[in-house]
Amino acid sequence: MYRTHSNGELTKININETVTLSGWVQKLRNKGFMIWVDLRDRYGITQLIFDEERTPKEVMEVASKLGREFVIQVTGTVIERESKNPNIPTGDIEILVSKLTILNNSLTPPFTIEDETDGGEDLRMKYRYLDIRRKPVRENLIFRHKVTMAVRNYLSAKNFVEVETPYLIKSTPEGARDFVVPSRMNAGQFYALPQSPQTFKQLLMVGGMDKYFQIVKCFRDEDLRADRQPEFTQIDCEMAFVEQEDILNTFEGLTRHLLKEINGVNIGDFPRMTYDEAMKRYGNDKPDIRFGMDFGELNAVSQHKDFNVFNSAELVVGIAVPGGNSFTRKEIDNLIDWVKRPQIGALGMVYCRYNEDGTFKSSVDKFYTEEDLAKWAETTGAKPGDLICVLSGETNKVRTQLSALRMHLAEQLGLRKHTEFAPLWVVDFPLLEWDEDTNRYHAMHHPFTSPKPGQMELLKTNPGDVKANAYDLVLNGNEIGGGSIRIHDKGIQSKMFDYLGFTPEEAKAQFGFLMDAFQYGAPPHGGIAFGLDRLVAILGGQETIRDFIAFPKNNAGRDVMIDAPAVIDKDQLDELNLKVVLKP
Amino acid sequence: MYRTHSNGELTKININETVTLSGWVQKLRNKGFMIWVDLRDRYGITQLIFDEERTPKEVMEVASKLGREFVIQVTGTVIERESKNPNIPTGDIEILVSKLTILNNSLTPPFTIEDETDGGEDLRMKYRYLDIRRKPVRENLIFRHKVTMAVRNYLSAKNFVEVETPYLIKSTPEGARDFVVPSRMNAGQFYALPQSPQTFKQLLMVGGMDKYFQIVKCFRDEDLRADRQPEFTQIDCEMAFVEQEDILNTFEGLTRHLLKEINGVNIGDFPRMTYDEAMKRYGNDKPDIRFGMDFGELNAVSQHKDFNVFNSAELVVGIAVPGGNSFTRKEIDNLIDWVKRPQIGALGMVYCRYNEDGTFKSSVDKFYTEEDLAKWAETTGAKPGDLICVLSGETNKVRTQLSALRMHLAEQLGLRKHTEFAPLWVVDFPLLEWDEDTNRYHAMHHPFTSPKPGQMELLKTNPGDVKANAYDLVLNGNEIGGGSIRIHDKGIQSKMFDYLGFTPEEAKAQFGFLMDAFQYGAPPHGGIAFGLDRLVAILGGQETIRDFIAFPKNNAGRDVMIDAPAVIDKDQLDELNLKVVLKP
Repeated sequence: MYRTHSNGELTKININETVTLSGWVQKLRNKGFMIWVDLRDRYGITQLIFDEERTPKEVMEVASKLGREFVIQVTGTVIERESKNPNIPTGDIEILVSKLTILNNSLTPPFTIEDETDGGEDLRMKYRYLDIRRKPVRENLIFRHKVTMAVRNYLSAKNFVEVETPYLIKSTPEGARDFVVPSRMNAGQFYALPQSPQTFKQLLMVGGMDKYFQIVKCFRDEDLRADRQPEFTQIDCEMAFVEQEDILNTFEGLTRHLLKEINGVNIGDFPRMTYDEAMKRYGNDKPDIRFGMDFGELNAVSQHKDFNVFNSAELVVGIAVPGGNSFTRKEIDNLIDWVKRPQIGALGMVYCRYNEDGTFKSSVDKFYTEEDLAKWAETTGAKPGDLICVLSGETNKVRTQLSALRMHLAEQLGLRKHTEFAPLWVVDFPLLEWDEDTNRYHAMHHPFTSPKPGQMELLKTNPGDVKANAYDLVLNGNEIGGGSIRIHDKGIQSKMFDYLGFTPEEAKAQFGFLMDAFQYGAPPHGGIAFGLDRLVAILGGQETIRDFIAFPKNNAGRDVMIDAPAVIDKDQLDELNLKVVLKP
Repeated sequence: MYRTHSNGELTKININETVTLSGWVQKLRNKGFMIWVDLRDRYGITQLIFDEERTPKEVMEVASKLGREFVIQVTGTVIERESKNPNIPTGDIEILVSKLTILNNSLTPPFTIEDETDGGEDLRMKYRYLDIRRKPVRENLIFRHKVTMAVRNYLSAKNFVEVETPYLIKSTPEGARDFVVPSRMNAGQFYALPQSPQTFKQLLMVGGMDKYFQIVKCFRDEDLRADRQPEFTQIDCEMAFVEQEDILNTFEGLTRHLLKEINGVNIGDFPRMTYDEAMKRYGNDKPDIRFGMDFGELNAVSQHKDFNVFNSAELVVGIAVPGGNSFTRKEIDNLIDWVKRPQIGALGMVYCRYNEDGTFKSSVDKFYTEEDLAKWAETTGAKPGDLICVLSGETNKVRTQLSALRMHLAEQLGLRKHTEFAPLWVVDFPLLEWDEDTNRYHAMHHPFTSPKPGQMELLKTNPGDVKANAYDLVLNGNEIGGGSIRIHDKGIQSKMFDYLGFTPEEAKAQFGFLMDAFQYGAPPHGGIAFGLDRLVAILGGQETIRDFIAFPKNNAGRDVMIDAPAVIDKDQLDELNLKVVLKP
């Protein structure tokens, strides 16, 4: 047996016990006549002491050869520590070692294996197995496990059944790119890895499983933006015989449970907001509502003067930055530069200081009176001491720009607190969105999303106005889940494919099995999927999903630790009836 | 709201309540003035009654148009049933319907959707979503969910952390064929889907995760034998700072827990048997020990006479078939034909009847006396009334043949009871096995398996004799799990790769990251992996894993429901820098 205890459990009550411990040498202090070692494992750190007066000579000798990250096993007596360490559970004791075995030695690690590391991202990823030894990384992975266990136990208790759906499925050109898998046994044919188990969970509903969930890997071969992974994990859920209200209640329950169980936070009913309202109030379909700075639309109170920038704008909209009047001129200029960066794309920013004495000072004083600016303040909810920032232009663009500014300022002002949680349902999403590239409407969610009752007819006349039974769950400005009530009627599903530009042949080739299934008594159904990586990161109070993934890939989709992807043998290609044809 | 209750919960105590139910029309009985419907959902069946005296005329009319598998919603009053059905929980009541909505209609399904179906395997798989509506199939999937929840909760309580390892990894020519995934972003390069997370779980041990598990899909592109799937699910586990004994105890605990929790069976300490003993006593490394019929080696008591078949054989070995003396001559001839089939390959079978009166009658009476045959009986443990079956030939072959016969007879005699569970650890597996094709030794388990202490030297002289710290968990004659203590020393791992015929370059290219990791303080570690599909099937008392997989593939690796794999667009191939080159 390698150990009688872990390195996190010995305390004063164990004094005088003989124990055996194993672990890694985290720290060494060698004074010649005395050697101290911090011994680490997943559970904690225990201090070992080698003392030439009390430790056998041969043990002392081996101890003097130890290095960082050596793996050792020791037997010794638990004794009270002279200088106690109140920061760790084992801080009252140390082990006077009588026996020491080196289980494995170690080269000097390429970066410091402590809470704070000197290893850059690239190095840490290449040696991820060493990075995981660091407590913050390890704790993130354990945290992820706790979240998934809580999800599974909650849903299971609510009669949901976790059903594994296949990974080797069929490629569909719809949506993002599939990863494909050549089949050897079916020459010239390919499986695809699922972007989500969408059609399978709908088939499970047709099959009467009633309540399904699955924590499942999904795959998208997209050009990776920051903090996206080609493989990611979804909490995938579906229910039969439900309306939108049933689904919102069920998964509000799940989320409330997680916040309580994992974060110890009690949250009441989640607020709800329509997509239209979210766009109008926050310029964003996933608003962070932990702080104010609601948009105030200023057209009515700004388009009556000679300021042509505003007069010619479709939308003039501002936010009140709390305490923003304390910004220096330089700080405000920086903000203006920030919104003018190509990523944001604003042409400029008008600002107005709301002085503590109730007066105003704006960058457009030659156009607007104090009375005008007071109305701006009223509309944006500004108070004395605030700064009003105003952007103008084409509605959708300017909303996006002001939303970015709002988030930037909130971050800067420390208003996005990691320990504060504000969930929000955004509902009534549009069914379709206009795609500039293809010059036509696409399904905003996916082609199985049900339009709101009675709106099918609108498709012909005002497709952009058709709302869907679709909803997102937003947490602290991040979409953590999204779903919809599905179409369960074969006729409507056909019409939808038709509307979305599928020929009957294409629809049949790609989704024939689903259309077939709908002929045999499909129940009304709907569901939701949560992005687990993101959810865990937010609950864990962090930003980067990569910190919660054991072996993440980099922005080029590479695993730098195992050096994948890689070329494969010609034999292997031949067997798969494939030839690599690199573009010149 | 679509329903106030499920179809499995209404009983006498609900009488007079107004309820709303939804579900599928399972059965219809229409007498014109009265219509009965069995309404089904996942939770059960409720009888509906439409009665022209008590049901509104328009409801009666709609009801008369219902067909099997229509999806309906009804509101009505719970009333006591005249002819009660004691077989179902809702058998005391029925619903007098006052309101009926057809939520979806249905074509006549291609097979009967009841416990017993008239649908053949192919048809059921094509319409798997209808097959899943059948109670036995649905219950299997729910059973699987219960097993995985029990596994997760047990291991989690024992401090195991479920860590997700990547699906897009690197291809290694070792072992079975990989499924590969072309990378678009890394032109000409491929990921591979994992055959198991073996190296990643070892890296997690190097990373100090201490106790890891994962219920995870694995992939093998093998020619499919009956009841194999290209994608299958593993309960994958690994522990650090453990010896074999720790692992056996931990996973014996898990298995005992499952048998208790899922099957209500209490099992004490699991017996253990070495590989050598299993081969000697049962001719098989995964013996079913629920019944006797141990092998009796008869060389000593059969090679002293003129029977050359036996005299020239390396091994003469028999089993006593309990009550087998009642077999007719015809039945015995059938057995002889059975062992002579090419799949078994025996040249013949000698038998000996042990009569109730203590006399013997054998097929080789001209060579052996009653005294000789009495010794056969003693060696095989035969009792009066039994039949002794004897095979002879080359040791390994004849053991395999007799093992097959033993299982065949046990099946035939009803000795393999689905409700009886007999787990067994088989330990001390050989490290290597001889491969006829390549004419060299291969790793029996995998190249990371640790040889028994002190046996490394034997590799040079008697490689076939080297035993490994490897073990299998066998349940009712099936290997449900297998694992080993791993090599954690870089030097030994290098030697092992070398011995297995890897050049240093190959070893580095394929497993360099693991060898690198071993330089930085790898702890002693080991693990086990359970085949979940098989485990669930056995716990569920059934033979076919396919019955416990929601959407299985057929023997050609095809999903006949979604018709995958399939050809993909040329555009898609171009993007992946691939060309399909079909062999003529």
